[in-house]
Amino acid sequence: MSDISRLKSRTRADYRYILEYRTRWSDNDMYDHMNNSIYNFLYDSVINTYLMENCGLHPPSSPQYGMVVHSHNDYFASISFPACAELALRVNRIGNSSVAYEIALFEKGHDAVRSVGEFVQVFVDRETGRPNAKGMNPELRRGLENLLVNREASKL
Amino acid sequence: MSDISRLKSRTRADYRYILEYRTRWSDNDMYDHMNNSIYNFLYDSVINTYLMENCGLHPPSSPQYGMVVHSHNDYFASISFPACAELALRVNRIGNSSVAYEIALFEKGHDAVRSVGEFVQVFVDRETGRPNAKGMNPELRRGLENLLVNREASKL
Amino acid sequence: MSDISRLKSRTRADYRYILEYRTRWSDNDMYDHMNNSIYNFLYDSVINTYLMENCGLHPPSSPQYGMVVHSHNDYFASISFPACAELALRVNRIGNSSVAYEIALFEKGHDAVRSVGEFVQVFVDRETGRPNAKGMNPELRRGLENLLVNREASKL
Amino acid sequence: MSDISRLKSRTRADYRYILEYRTRWSDNDMYDHMNNSIYNFLYDSVINTYLMENCGLHPPSSPQYGMVVHSHNDYFASISFPACAELALRVNRIGNSSVAYEIALFEKGHDAVRSVGEFVQVFVDRETGRPNAKGMNPELRRGLENLLVNREASKL
Repeated sequence: MSDISRLKSRTRADYRYILEYRTRWSDNDMYDHMNNSIYNFLYDSVINTYLMENCGLHPPSSPQYGMVVHSHNDYFASISFPACAELALRVNRIGNSSVAYEIALFEKGHDAVRSVGEFVQVFVDRETGRPNAKGMNPELRRGLENLLVNREASKL
Repeated sequence: MSDISRLKSRTRADYRYILEYRTRWSDNDMYDHMNNSIYNFLYDSVINTYLMENCGLHPPSSPQYGMVVHSHNDYFASISFPACAELALRVNRIGNSSVAYEIALFEKGHDAVRSVGEFVQVFVDRETGRPNAKGMNPELRRGLENLLVNREASKL
Repeated sequence: MSDISRLKSRTRADYRYILEYRTRWSDNDMYDHMNNSIYNFLYDSVINTYLMENCGLHPPSSPQYGMVVHSHNDYFASISFPACAELALRVNRIGNSSVAYEIALFEKGHDAVRSVGEFVQVFVDRETGRPNAKGMNPELRRGLENLLVNREASKL
Repeated sequence: MSDISRLKSRTRADYRYILEYRTRWSDNDMYDHMNNSIYNFLYDSVINTYLMENCGLHPPSSPQYGMVVHSHNDYFASISFPACAELALRVNRIGNSSVAYEIALFEKGHDAVRSVGEFVQVFVDRETGRPNAKGMNPELRRGLENLLVNREASKL
């Protein structure tokens, strides 16, 4: 099975954390489907909600925060306002200061996944804007490890 | 009681239709609260969801659609990502081709209203971009009348 | 002349500060014109650019910042991607801690104004989220006074 | 030289079409730099402006339109409101119905590239939402070929 076929066959059970987001009128573009840029807004939202609620992140004051250094996304089918989207999150890799999230978008009431993408964040010190030698703080790491999927088992 | 005091004391019971919208990471500005422009995105979303689900509006093809000609909004308190917003809708006035919606934003789990605003839409023909002499179509009017509040009774 | 007629006859000469903003693909909604909420994004942008470049505002650290407490807008004609918008700014009123901006949107290469609105900001202390008795700081006030229009003369 | 080093050394001369976009207040997130999702909005905007001005695309009526099926992006350095961004566009590959654009974001007045990404679009028939056997129409193809870079020469 090719990589893209594997991604296309993702189900909600492949993820550890799911939030529902109602689409907004302005999400649709002139072709009557949600604009591709909005997917990134939603990916960012489910990631940051998880970080704030489960990893101790407080964006206005935390000594470390995540900067996105890479993103990619494959779009398999569209979704349109006023549908509800379900954003599903897992962690594929954790490094010293970096983490690779996998995020999928589903439409409420439908099985087939609409899109799957990855965001890579590097945690940097607020003071310097750079990662430090000790890497991400322990509370962050523990929270992210709870979403880590055994990639051997999942054969991506 | 001044107009602004009346608006500030609005409760969910003053509205006829309520939808929940999860806030997004990008909704917050640098001051850690939802940017004022996002309120309009959400007002627009609850209005258009109602029009599509209860008034027969189909944006890509309906012969008439609503154009916003006026909006105003009063902001009483802020809301911040990742809170859930509840958008509450009623109709204050219906004319031949126009409608004045009142929309309020609440935060899930809190009583006090965060903002109250009005949008005035004029329904225009898709062909001409202008209202016609017969006014809005009957299905639209019926749907909007279901949200109409007796303004004498509500003393606005 | 009614208030609305006066606003509709605004020209670029009625304003003190003008910036050009290229519209974005996602600004258009399904009706092929810029969504009403985007006007507020652009109003906010020209105001904050002025505050940062001419009034000493530094959003991540300034001891005071502006919170929008009221906005209203009248839409006279639409604009569509990929047109360039010109955002024109003036100040109509200055209080102890508050300021009322008037903002107009023009389309590059066209005379007639597309929309005119007002934003009212209250400057609050970052520490408390509330205005203080001394009002806005002197550098802010001086910068805003440079945009203040003699409203008697302009007969609004 | 690795792929990522090649991308990081891109200059404006590597592109065929450049447009300037002023950043907006709401583009910044809480960390005082432009949110990663906004890059996609700008990439989409320079692509669609080119398609409308040079390839005959008319979004509300053209028989074919482009659907984004894949996107990826590498972020090398940040940009912050109120800076001006310059969006630079080229075409890396053209297939029967598909095109791979490369887009780079520069900051006005600075040499170093801030981000480089690719969008892959498939041109589909408006009626069916699917590509047809003849592929994209000739006017589109000619316009896109004018941005095509000899990838052997550019050694990507």
